[in-house]
Formats: sequence, C-alpha cells, structure tokens
Amino acid sequence: MRPSDQLRPIDIQVGYLNSNPSSVLYRCGDTVVLCSASLEPGVPGWLEGKGKGWVTAEYDMLPSSTNPRKRRDRSGKLDGRTTEIQRLIGRSLRAVVDLKALGERSIVVDCDVLQADGGTRTASITGGFIALATLIKRELPDSSIGNGPLRDSIAAISVGVIDGEVRLDLDYEWDVAADVDMNVVMTGSGRFVELQGTGEEATFDDEQLTRMIALAKKGIAELTQRQLDLVS
Amino acid sequence: MRPSDQLRPIDIQVGYLNSNPSSVLYRCGDTVVLCSASLEPGVPGWLEGKGKGWVTAEYDMLPSSTNPRKRRDRSGKLDGRTTEIQRLIGRSLRAVVDLKALGERSIVVDCDVLQADGGTRTASITGGFIALATLIKRELPDSSIGNGPLRDSIAAISVGVIDGEVRLDLDYEWDVAADVDMNVVMTGSGRFVELQGTGEEATFDDEQLTRMIALAKKGIAELTQRQLDLVS
Amino acid sequence: MRPSDQLRPIDIQVGYLNSNPSSVLYRCGDTVVLCSASLEPGVPGWLEGKGKGWVTAEYDMLPSSTNPRKRRDRSGKLDGRTTEIQRLIGRSLRAVVDLKALGERSIVVDCDVLQADGGTRTASITGGFIALATLIKRELPDSSIGNGPLRDSIAAISVGVIDGEVRLDLDYEWDVAADVDMNVVMTGSGRFVELQGTGEEATFDDEQLTRMIALAKKGIAELTQRQLDLVS
Amino acid sequence: MRPSDQLRPIDIQVGYLNSNPSSVLYRCGDTVVLCSASLEPGVPGWLEGKGKGWVTAEYDMLPSSTNPRKRRDRSGKLDGRTTEIQRLIGRSLRAVVDLKALGERSIVVDCDVLQADGGTRTASITGGFIALATLIKRELPDSSIGNGPLRDSIAAISVGVIDGEVRLDLDYEWDVAADVDMNVVMTGSGRFVELQGTGEEATFDDEQLTRMIALAKKGIAELTQRQLDLVS
Amino acid sequence: MRPSDQLRPIDIQVGYLNSNPSSVLYRCGDTVVLCSASLEPGVPGWLEGKGKGWVTAEYDMLPSSTNPRKRRDRSGKLDGRTTEIQRLIGRSLRAVVDLKALGERSIVVDCDVLQADGGTRTASITGGFIALATLIKRELPDSSIGNGPLRDSIAAISVGVIDGEVRLDLDYEWDVAADVDMNVVMTGSGRFVELQGTGEEATFDDEQLTRMIALAKKGIAELTQRQLDLVS
Amino acid sequence: MRPSDQLRPIDIQVGYLNSNPSSVLYRCGDTVVLCSASLEPGVPGWLEGKGKGWVTAEYDMLPSSTNPRKRRDRSGKLDGRTTEIQRLIGRSLRAVVDLKALGERSIVVDCDVLQADGGTRTASITGGFIALATLIKRELPDSSIGNGPLRDSIAAISVGVIDGEVRLDLDYEWDVAADVDMNVVMTGSGRFVELQGTGEEATFDDEQLTRMIALAKKGIAELTQRQLDLVS
Repeated sequence: MRPSDQLRPIDIQVGYLNSNPSSVLYRCGDTVVLCSASLEPGVPGWLEGKGKGWVTAEYDMLPSSTNPRKRRDRSGKLDGRTTEIQRLIGRSLRAVVDLKALGERSIVVDCDVLQADGGTRTASITGGFIALATLIKRELPDSSIGNGPLRDSIAAISVGVIDGEVRLDLDYEWDVAADVDMNVVMTGSGRFVELQGTGEEATFDDEQLTRMIALAKKGIAELTQRQLDLVS
Repeated sequence: MRPSDQLRPIDIQVGYLNSNPSSVLYRCGDTVVLCSASLEPGVPGWLEGKGKGWVTAEYDMLPSSTNPRKRRDRSGKLDGRTTEIQRLIGRSLRAVVDLKALGERSIVVDCDVLQADGGTRTASITGGFIALATLIKRELPDSSIGNGPLRDSIAAISVGVIDGEVRLDLDYEWDVAADVDMNVVMTGSGRFVELQGTGEEATFDDEQLTRMIALAKKGIAELTQRQLDLVS
Repeated sequence: MRPSDQLRPIDIQVGYLNSNPSSVLYRCGDTVVLCSASLEPGVPGWLEGKGKGWVTAEYDMLPSSTNPRKRRDRSGKLDGRTTEIQRLIGRSLRAVVDLKALGERSIVVDCDVLQADGGTRTASITGGFIALATLIKRELPDSSIGNGPLRDSIAAISVGVIDGEVRLDLDYEWDVAADVDMNVVMTGSGRFVELQGTGEEATFDDEQLTRMIALAKKGIAELTQRQLDLVS
Repeated sequence: MRPSDQLRPIDIQVGYLNSNPSSVLYRCGDTVVLCSASLEPGVPGWLEGKGKGWVTAEYDMLPSSTNPRKRRDRSGKLDGRTTEIQRLIGRSLRAVVDLKALGERSIVVDCDVLQADGGTRTASITGGFIALATLIKRELPDSSIGNGPLRDSIAAISVGVIDGEVRLDLDYEWDVAADVDMNVVMTGSGRFVELQGTGEEATFDDEQLTRMIALAKKGIAELTQRQLDLVS
Repeated sequence: MRPSDQLRPIDIQVGYLNSNPSSVLYRCGDTVVLCSASLEPGVPGWLEGKGKGWVTAEYDMLPSSTNPRKRRDRSGKLDGRTTEIQRLIGRSLRAVVDLKALGERSIVVDCDVLQADGGTRTASITGGFIALATLIKRELPDSSIGNGPLRDSIAAISVGVIDGEVRLDLDYEWDVAADVDMNVVMTGSGRFVELQGTGEEATFDDEQLTRMIALAKKGIAELTQRQLDLVS
Repeated sequence: MRPSDQLRPIDIQVGYLNSNPSSVLYRCGDTVVLCSASLEPGVPGWLEGKGKGWVTAEYDMLPSSTNPRKRRDRSGKLDGRTTEIQRLIGRSLRAVVDLKALGERSIVVDCDVLQADGGTRTASITGGFIALATLIKRELPDSSIGNGPLRDSIAAISVGVIDGEVRLDLDYEWDVAADVDMNVVMTGSGRFVELQGTGEEATFDDEQLTRMIALAKKGIAELTQRQLDLVS
C-alpha cells in the first residue's frame, strides 16, 4: 500500500494531439485527463470594453472513463458536481493570470477525463495549468512565469482523513473510505488560492485541519517542480 | 462602521407562515431569508430500502431581492452559483442528522432569499437549521439535540480579508471589497463541517488563514447560542 | 362563516423591502403576495423605435406557500396555469397605463406568492397596481392618476357560485367548493378590463352571470378605495 | 362587407383523413382547422383508479397557416398563447362529457390549424366537438347526446367591439381593429361554459357586455344547429 | 396487388392554401403531404456577406397522420428520424438551386404530413420541389428550369427488396415487410443526388443494388414528367 | 500525395483503458477515435419481453479534436450531424449481431473522437466493431464470428469524387474538396449494409457510382483483414 504522504506516479505528455500543440495528457496513477488550451477572440459580454481577457474551463468525463460506464449526460442541464468542478478549475487558473496583460481575448481550458480513479478535479487544475502555460508561451515566446500574463504557477491536490489517519492524494478507493476530504489549490510560491474541506456525514477538528494542510503543501511542492520542468 | 469582529444584528421569527409552522424568517442586517422545512414521504430512488432518511435543500432568490432586479431564471438550467449553494446547505444540514434515526422519509429545507445583502448562503444554513429542528421537534416531541435524529446543531458564517484586515460576517459592500472570502460551517460543539476559502484573483497565506478561522469560531459560537435559545 | 358579499380582511405594506421602495406586501386573509415594481431601460425587441414603453408581470409561488409543499418548478417550462396568470396580470396593468407617456422603458411587476389561500391572481393585480403606482410616483412626482402615465386605477376580485349561491372573494376552501368561478378586473372608474368566467364540469345561466357581476363590482369599489388611500 | 351580426360561411367535412374516421376539416371563412379525436387507453396518473375518463386537447398552427410564415416552435416550451388555447379547448369539451360514463380511458382532440384568419380557438372548440361526438358515436353506437357520455353539445364564437359597434365572428382584419374581444363558449341548451372578455389597452361597459353576449348567443345557436345535423 | 414496378396514384394540388400560393397538397396513394415554400429576407449567420442565398426544409407529422395517433413531440428535441429527413430534403432541393442566382435571401420549404402511408420523405422532396419552383416562378416570372435559380428539377422515390423481389414505391405495408430499402433522389436530367440504401438486420448484394437503381430511375422519370407539367 | 486507391496508415490498440478492457483506440492517419463497448442489463422498454438483446452507439467529438476548437454542445439538443452518425453506427453494428443469441441485455458502443481529420464515422464503425467483438469474446469465450452472437464482421470506409477522380478514404482536406462523397458499410463476407452517397450542390452519374463502389470494396477488404487479425 502506498505510504500516506506519497503522491501517485505522474506522467505528463505535452502536445498529445497533433490538432492542438497546447494539449496535455496528464496521468496520476490510473486517473487520465486530457487538458487542452485554446485561444478565442473576444471576451464574454459582461467583460467587453474593459481591456481585460478571460480564462475559463470546461470539464467532462467520457462514458468509458468509469466502470460501470457513466451515462452520457445529454439533458442540457449540467449536473451539480460538473458545474462546481469547472467553476473551481476556472477560478484557480485565473488566480495566476494577469487578465489585463492577456488583452481582450479568451482562453478555454478543456479538461476531459479519459479514465477516472479519484482526483480528477485536482489533476485538471495541475494539468490544465501546463496546457495554459504552453499556449501562452507559444503566443508570447518572450514571456515567462512572473513576466507576462502568468504571475505564478498553480497546482492542486487532495488530502483526507481515513480511519483517523491523514492521507495525501486520494484515489477512488481511498476517497470512498475517507470521512473528510479536502482539495487544496496553491501557487508555486506557496500561497493558498482555494481550500475546500468537506465532511459528508462527518466532521473534523483543528488538529486534523493543520495536518491536512501540511501534507497538501508537501504534495503541491512536488507537483510544482514537475510543472516548472515542462513549461518554464 | 461595524467593528471587524462583530456580527450584524440578527432577528429570527419562527412560524412566520400560517401554512407551515416550520417556517423561519431569518434576518441578519439587511439580508432576509425565508427558510421552511417540509416532511415528505419516501426517499430518493438510490436510497430506497436502506432504512435511512434524507435531508436536502433548495435555494433561490426572488427577483426583487436585489437592486437592480435579478432576472428570474426560467431557463430550466440552474446557474452554477445556485447549484453550489444548495448542495452546500444540504451537506451542512445532513452533517448533524442521524439519517437512520429519521427513518425512510425526506425533509426538504427551502431557503428563499427575500432580500440579499451578502451572506445569504450562511444565513440559509443557520436559519435552515432552526426550521429543520422545529420540524423534528414537532414530529418527535420527545427528541432533543443529541437525543434523536439531531446529533448536534449547525451554523455558518463568512469571514474575509479586506485591505489586509480580517473581518467577520461580510455584507454586500464588504464582500465586494474582499480579496479573500471564506465560508465556515461548524457544529455547536465546535467541529468543522465545511471550510471554503477562495481568492478570486487573489491569494492568502497561513497567518491569514489562522486568523480567519479564529474569527469564524467566535461568530459561530454566538449564532449557536441564538439557535439553542429557540429550538432546544 | 364570512357573509357571501364581504371581502376578507386586507392588509397592505408599501415599501416592504429596503432593497426596493416599490415593493408591496399584500395580504387578504391568509393569502400573502409580495409585489415589486422595477424600472428597466429599453423595451422588448418588437416594440423598439415606436416611442412606447412596456409593462409586464411575472408570477410565481414559493414552495412553502402551500401545504403540502408545492414542488419548485425547475423544468424550464412554465406550467399552463402560471403562464395564464402572468399574462392576465400584465394585460390588466397595461390597460390603465399610457404606454406612450411612459417613454421607451419597461416596468416589470414581480408577484411572488408567500402564502396561498385562494385569489392569488386577483391579489397580484390589486397589489401589483399599488407597486406600479408607487414606482411611477417616485419617478414622476408631479404625475397623478389621470395625469401622467397612469390613466386610471385597476383592481380585481373573484366571485363564484357555491351550491347555487353567489359568493364574493373565494378563499381556497370556497374555490374548491365552487361550481363556477369568475375573475373580474375593473378600473377605478368602473369599466371592465377582463372577465373570465369558467365552469369546470359545470355551467351557468344569465341570472347567475348578472349576480356575479354585481357582487364583483361591489368588491372592486372597496379595493379601489384602499388603493387610492395609499397611492393618490 | 359582412353584416355585423352574421357568421362567416361554414364548411365541415367529417372523416377527412382515411387514417382517422373521427377527423373533421372545419372551415369558417378562410380559417381552416383539422380536428381529430383519438381514443387512448388509461388516464393521466392523478386520475387513476377513480373510475373516470379524461378528455384533453392539443392545439398547434402549421408554419404555412399564416402569411408571413409562422416560425415553427421547436424550443420545447409552449408559448403562452398556445397553452391558454389548448387548456380552453380541453375545459370546454369536458364541460359536456360525463367522465364517469366514459370509463378509465382518454380522448385526445388534436386541433391543427392549416390556415388562420381569426377565430381559430372557437373553430377548434366547435369542430373539436364534432370530432369528439363522431368518435363516441363510433365507439358507443347506442349513445346519443344526452344519453351516454355526451350530456350536451358545445360550440364557441367570438364577438367584439370595433369603433363602438358590436360585431360577431371576428376574422383577422376585424380582430386587429377590435378594442375589445370576447370568446363565448356555450352548450346547445344555452348555458355558459366560458366567457373570456378582454380589452387590450381598452375597456368596456355594462351595455357593451350585454350586447356582446346577446350576439354571441345568436351565433352559437346557428353553430349548434350545424353540429346536430352532423352528429345526432 | 399493385405490380412491383408501378407507382401509386398521384394527385397534386398547387395553391392549396389561400394564405400561400406556393403551397402544394401532394398525395401518392394514402400518403398526403402539405408542402409550402416561403421566402424570407436574409440568410443564416454563417452565410452572410457571401452573396449567396439558402434553401432549407422543415418536416413534421401531424399527430392524426398515423393510426394509432402519433404523440406530438414537445420535448424541444427533434427525434433522430425527423432530423435526418429534413436534412435530406434540404440537401436535395439545394442540389438543383443556383444559390448565387437566388441572392441573399432564404427559402423555407415546410413539409407537413397530414396522412402517412410510407414514402413521406420522398413525397416531401417531390412535392417540395413543386412548391419551391412555384415560388421562384412567382418571384422571377422570366426564369425557367435551367434559366434562373433553378438548374434542374428534382424528385425522389423509394425502392426495396421484399422476399427477394425488388419493388418500387414502398407503402407502409411493403416498408414493414422489406429487408432492404433505398431512397433515391435524382435530377430531371437523370443524375444522382442522394442514394441511401439500408438493411436493418439484413444485407444486400451487387445484383440487388443494380436492380433497385434501375427501378428507381424508371419511377423518377414518371415523377419528373408530372412535375414539369405543373411548373415549367 | 497519397495514391487515390490507398488507405491511410492504421493503428489499433485494444484494451487502451484499464477501466474497460473492451476499449479500442483506433487511428487512421490523424483521425483518432476511442471506441468502448459496455454491457448493460436489460433492453429498451419497447423491446422488453421479446427475448432479444440490443446494440446501440453513442458518438461525440471532444472540443479539442478540431482546430479551431469545437464548441462543447450543452444545449441538450443533439445536432443533426451527431444524431445521423450515431444512428448509422448503431444500425451498422446491429446488422452483424444475432440479437436473439445476445439475450435480453444491451451493449452500448461509445465512440469518442479525440482528433478529427475526416472519416470519423467510418472509423467509429470499424473500430467500434473491434470493441464489440472484444466484449463478446470476453463474455462468451467459446463464441467466434459466425458462431455465437456475431454473424459476421463489419467495416466502413468513405469514397468520393474530387475533380472527376474517384478517391478512397477521404481525410479532411479531400473531404472539403470532394463534389460527391459516399460512405459504404460492408460485412466481411462482402455484402452491403449501408450505402450513403451525397452530392452537396453537385451530382454524380452511373459510371462514377460504379467506380466508387469498387474502390470502397477494396478498402473494406483490407480493413476486414486488420479486424480479423485482432478479434478472431
């Protein structure tokens, strides 16, 4: 069994699709997400004329990504979980983008889950950042993180409490067993962007909170290193 | 100006509607939410036959609750914010309910915002608990908190960082000015149920996190007292 | 039991919400409707460039307004009853508005039922007029009914036939018992705007029609007096 | 110009479609409606087990029925006018049907407008009754009006006020010119089922109401005669 | 029984509706389709500014066109069969229209099935062409087929294999019995536009293909003659 | 330039996803489709109790599969092209399945396009068959093609006419240039299942038809060989 403070093995392929060089196949364990960043002219209506750009994310799971098969949602209504996740990804990515420096154009980051084994939302943020950074680097070759539209890097990981023990990077089996789970989104420089801790039919105390945050920081530092190796 | 560690004035009317004795008009400052709990036979399909009950919440804002008027959403698609809020309210209330003790029946807690001035989701949780507890007390007069379906009380409050200062209970004006805001949901016995901290185009550090949590605990202790005066 | 020719007790609070001074809480017996008028720039597309304004209404019932709880409709399709009612409210209000004098802008009157005990559509018209007149008075302080965009006042009441007897102002219990019911909308000067008489699995004759109309006129005269006390 | 108290010429073909012998092509002037009655097993869920049947109507207009072409509505939301009309047709037909005598089965009356020149809803009621009566006669050859599921006949006509003059059977041109229009639905024995008088941006007084009703009665007596010639 | 190489009897009424002179009632056997062509200003957004016009088709079936009654689809989602058919009709008609010669305007051809006995899509194409040609002739009296926006005529017919025998013009009974059916769309000058052969749970070989095509050509030659008699 | 009678290079990975061993990554040139077959209990309602199984297909394209990005369709309405394609895939696969031998259960074949360069529907059929056959082989190890639920293999390819020349296996560039394109679906034993030839704003004659069919047969024979190498 994987030690409680260790990430799953990670494999990242940048430029996975010929049709889009800013596409990234991000694997952590058996979770596989295809993240692609696309540039689009203009911004949403409520942002027009303000000299700022926009970054948004869309998230979906292929039917074959789970076993048993996940029914394809064609109702025209996004389910609550999908809505929450793609709003979280978008907010997280925007936290490190200087929207003024982007100018009046939009970046859409598509995160499509090919295989789901827990942690798809944090994988989407971590992999989505690599796709975003690849796109910006192609458009603005002279920019770098901290110098241009990208102010910092961003990565995310889950932590949780299972039978009283705090664990890092929950796969599906651990996620089901967890009483509490928390997703943490942090910048490369170590500041929080999002902290979402939830006990479904359970609660947690101060000490558990402190230990979860410490473990998340350790994991994010490792992810940040992997990101910077690819995009800086 | 209100001190940074002080709640807005709170006014709570239990039994506001003749049509439903478990209806609560909850005011905190200029935020007014009508919370009503209703008992319904049966449970959702995926829970049938497990000998457990269910608690869910629905949240909406009247068009006249904001100025300018909020367009009435009749698209058939819940917007992302509404979806997130009503899922949060439901999870929070379920955290203190013993679903087995409830038996195979459902409680719906409707939270309709009559007037919005910031903090409608936390008001919905705090007021929704009073509606829920009133309903359970009417159905099971011999039960009490800790003895029957209700294991504990639950309340929620927001905190945030404005110009570097940590503030309690954000009204609309403060919410707009805040770089970071965090919603904290805690039980009467002082355990966390949800912690949602977000920096939209901003970040926060460990020290700010510690101070926000401390301030939230202080506010929730006061709210818990108000709740227990009414329903225990 | 209330005499057959008598209205239920009426209570009207103008400026009920701080967020909108043109909000009216209208109670008749146990029916409670929150009516709010809002001014919006522009007119619907088909009316653009004609130098006329528009008045429309939206109607909805809170889930907790009935017992048992009314399921919240989130299908995206307005049910037939809601559609009919809000079209009726809109037509009725427009009948006393000089749309040219209004100029190219729109007024939306929201009628949200907090508690339903029969007569919600007629309460919405009577209360909605007060909200509308309050808004116009605030925008055009020199105007008055008959002098400015408002040509007259408008009010509405229901009448019906129960066991052969004609009765005024049907509450829920009477409405269920009625063989025939008729909604009458009239101006303050005593002219008809709408007359909708319906026998569901029943019919009515000339004499009953004459008596229903006479009783409705009596009720509307009283409502008009209440309206004029508040808005003229 | 047609005299103000005269109906448009009427032509009725029973059994218009080979696929349904209870299909009726109903023409009054240039308004053409195809009315078909179909028997279906069972009743809507809320009526199950009560030993009663149900009658409902659906109304639609072909795109080519108007000039310019009416856009085909494929939004999944019935517009307000269509909803109101098909509810009116259904209520009107049910007023003369003994639902108990029908037994636990449903009749759907489809009213599809092939060409629209005013009065499509009243034509749908008058023609729809013929389709309904034809179907019942085929199913229950020994029944007759007044003896079996049909208690009476039903017909409908419009009246209105144009330049102060009361007129019968409004075609499109008259309808546009009318200040007030009223649809009257009556049984063959002369009792009212529905009375819907509306002044859009206009009003009417007692005397006009009296004259409209008198004229409507005259028209309905003629329509009743035409119906009875075909189905009794 | 009709010989295997013979069309059903055809009856065509041009100008069936007073409201639209380009309306055609097309009957082949017991299949009856009302085809109407309407001119509309402008073109779809993706075609704007290219100096070309557009031709599109909409197809629907009345509920009473089949026995038992076909449920009216008001879900807002076109079912797959309807979508395929109206795309096929549109493509077929466009194949003989010089969209440049049409200029920047659109023609909508509505095909509404009044009675369905097999072959409604091919009847819609054959009848729809007559409606289209009638409209163009009215707008451009000096044009003719081959000289103006219409480059050729177009017609369609079905063929199939029943118990090993190839048959022309499948009515409903034959269609149900067929192992293979093929719809063929050809111009008056004998060139293919569409060829759609399908074996549902069956297959076909080269020789059957050759014989089906030969029979379809014979049928289309007859239909072309009928069309040219009416519109050239 | 690729010779006109030659297929693009093909690469097929069976068991691409750990979560589903019946998943196939099918590449032909730059077109990449992920095909997964899943077994589900039961059959659609209209097939219940007939002792037969069902095979259906769902088709979708990831937003990043095209450049520029294809907008994700979340309207709840399948566009016409998607509807046509997934109906075609389903019909094609069913043509070689003995639904009785399958028993009362369903197989869903998901075809999700990761990268699109023309020919995605024919790739979905050819790859979808491999996923289907892999699933059946796992469930019924003793079955083989011709002996068990699978009666034959099935594959598909496109052909077209470009500047008068007939070409095999159209990629995106050729597809845009083609005047006529035809999709051919055939069994391994050389019988037709579907033949869909279309000239958008163009037509074709007998000789072109003959040559397109000959070329398609050649391509399908090669594809069949590749399939049998993997699944027999």
